[in-house]
Amino acid sequence: MKNIYMIGIGLIGGSFAVDIKNNNPEVKIYGIDANENHLDEALKLGVIEEKATLDNLENADLVIVSIPVDATVKLLPIILDKISDNTLVVDAGSTKEAICKVVEHHPKRRNFLAAHPIAGTENSGPSAAISGLYKGKTNIICEVEKTTFKLQEKALDLFRAIGMRIRYMDPVSHDKHIAYVSHLSHISAFMLGKTVINKEKNERDIFDMAGSGFASTVRLAKSSPAMWTPIFKQNKENVIETLEEYINNLQKFKELMQQDNFSEIFNEMENTNYIKQILNGIK
Amino acid sequence: MKNIYMIGIGLIGGSFAVDIKNNNPEVKIYGIDANENHLDEALKLGVIEEKATLDNLENADLVIVSIPVDATVKLLPIILDKISDNTLVVDAGSTKEAICKVVEHHPKRRNFLAAHPIAGTENSGPSAAISGLYKGKTNIICEVEKTTFKLQEKALDLFRAIGMRIRYMDPVSHDKHIAYVSHLSHISAFMLGKTVINKEKNERDIFDMAGSGFASTVRLAKSSPAMWTPIFKQNKENVIETLEEYINNLQKFKELMQQDNFSEIFNEMENTNYIKQILNGIK
Repeated sequence: MKNIYMIGIGLIGGSFAVDIKNNNPEVKIYGIDANENHLDEALKLGVIEEKATLDNLENADLVIVSIPVDATVKLLPIILDKISDNTLVVDAGSTKEAICKVVEHHPKRRNFLAAHPIAGTENSGPSAAISGLYKGKTNIICEVEKTTFKLQEKALDLFRAIGMRIRYMDPVSHDKHIAYVSHLSHISAFMLGKTVINKEKNERDIFDMAGSGFASTVRLAKSSPAMWTPIFKQNKENVIETLEEYINNLQKFKELMQQDNFSEIFNEMENTNYIKQILNGIK
Repeated sequence: MKNIYMIGIGLIGGSFAVDIKNNNPEVKIYGIDANENHLDEALKLGVIEEKATLDNLENADLVIVSIPVDATVKLLPIILDKISDNTLVVDAGSTKEAICKVVEHHPKRRNFLAAHPIAGTENSGPSAAISGLYKGKTNIICEVEKTTFKLQEKALDLFRAIGMRIRYMDPVSHDKHIAYVSHLSHISAFMLGKTVINKEKNERDIFDMAGSGFASTVRLAKSSPAMWTPIFKQNKENVIETLEEYINNLQKFKELMQQDNFSEIFNEMENTNYIKQILNGIK
C-alpha cells in the first residue's frame, strides 16, 4: 500500500489516518472532505499529508469513507466508478443496509468492504482524531463474501494492525441490533439533555447540582447532528421500534410510581442491574 | 474532634470516613450499619476502626448518616435523641424535604445539618469507598440557619478540608431540581438497560456491538435499588413530573421521525448540543 485516500477526515476518518500512518510510515495519506476548513485543519494537525479530490482516486490503493451516511449512499457508487481494479474501498457508516443496497449491482462491488467500527467519542472534526481510538474495539463487517478475497485480506490485516476485533454480520441484523445498543442511547441522551435544559433554562446555576452521573448519562447529547440525523433517517423503522419499547418501559415505571408500587420499582431496577455483567465486557 | 460515628459505611459514608481519617489521623472512626457483613468488610478494609451501636452515640463529636433515605427518616429522630449537646449530625441523603421535615420540631434540631454531597459512583458497599471522591464536588446544604452556628462552622471546615464546594438551598427547591439533574438520569439509564436487555436476551453476543457510548449512557443502571427505591418514593411528585416531560420529549422525537421531519430532528439535536457548555462545568 502506498496511497491512502481518506474521504471524510473527522473523528472516525482522522483517527484511522493517524494510526495507519503510525503503523505504515511509508504510505501517503490524502484527504478529501466537503468542508475546506476541515481539510486545512487536518493538514495543519498532520492528520493528512495532502489534499485531494475524487478525480485522484484512480491512484488509490485504499479509500476509507467516513462521512455522514446519507453522503456515503450518494457518493459510494461514484467512488467505485473512479477507482482502479486493485483499489479497496471501506466505509465506516453506522448503518449498513442502505449502503450495501446502493452498490449491490455496481460492477466494482467486489472492491468494496462494508464496515462499522464501533468506536468513537462525542467529539467531531479533525481535532477529534486520536491515536488508539480503535484499539480493542469491535469492527462489524457486513457481506464479507461480496468482497474479493485478496482485498478482504488486505482490510483485515489493516484493522488487526490497529488492534480491532472483527465480527461478521448481515446488514439487516446489523441495523436492527445497532438501533438498540447505539442509536437508542443517543436519543435517550439527547432527550434527557433537552428535558433538563428546558426545565432549567432560567436557572443556570442549578447545573451546579449536576454530578458525574448526569454528565455520563447525557454525554452523547454532545454528538454531531449532521452525523446523526441521516443515521436515524436510514434506520428509521428500527429506531422507531426501539423508541416505542423505551417509551413503554418509562411509561410503565411512571405508572408503578403513581400506584405507589415501590416493591415492583425495586424489582425493575434489580433485574436491570444485570447490565453490570454485560458492561464488564465493554471498554 | 475525636470520635466520629459513621452510620452507613458504604460508598458515601465509607468515602467520607477514608478522607476524614486521612486529614485527621487523631480521630477515631466508628462504624454502625444494619448489615453486619458490611461492618466486617469495612473493618477489614480499614474504612472504620471499630464497630459501634446507636447506644454509643453519646460519645460522638460527629455523626455522619449515609443510609437509604427511608432509613434516615426513621432513624434521624432516634439519633438526635441519643447524642450529646455538642454533637454535630450530618446526613448525606439525595432527598431533603422529608428528612428536614421529620426533625423540624426535634429539641436537638440545631445539632443537625442537612446535606447532599453530589458525588458518587455506580458502585456500592464498603469496597466502593474511595479517597478523593468529594474533591471538587458540590455539597448542597439545606436550612443552614437551623443549625447552631458553632456546629455549622465545624461541618463547613470538614467539607472544605476534603475539597468540597458549598451551595445553600431550601429543601423544596433541592428536591425539585435534583429530580431533573440526578433522579431522572437514573431512570433514563435503568429503562435503557431494561429495553436493551429485554430485546437482546436471547442474543448475548449482540452486546459485542455495544461501544463506549452505550456503556456511558447506561452506567447508572448499575446503581443500588435499595438506595434508589426510597429516593424515588420520597421525591415521587417531582420525579413523576420529570418523567412526564422526558416521555413527552421522546414521544415528540418519535413523531418527528414518523413524519419524516428530519430537519426538525436535526434542530432538536443541535439545540441540545448546548449541553456541551453546561458539561464543561461538570467533572
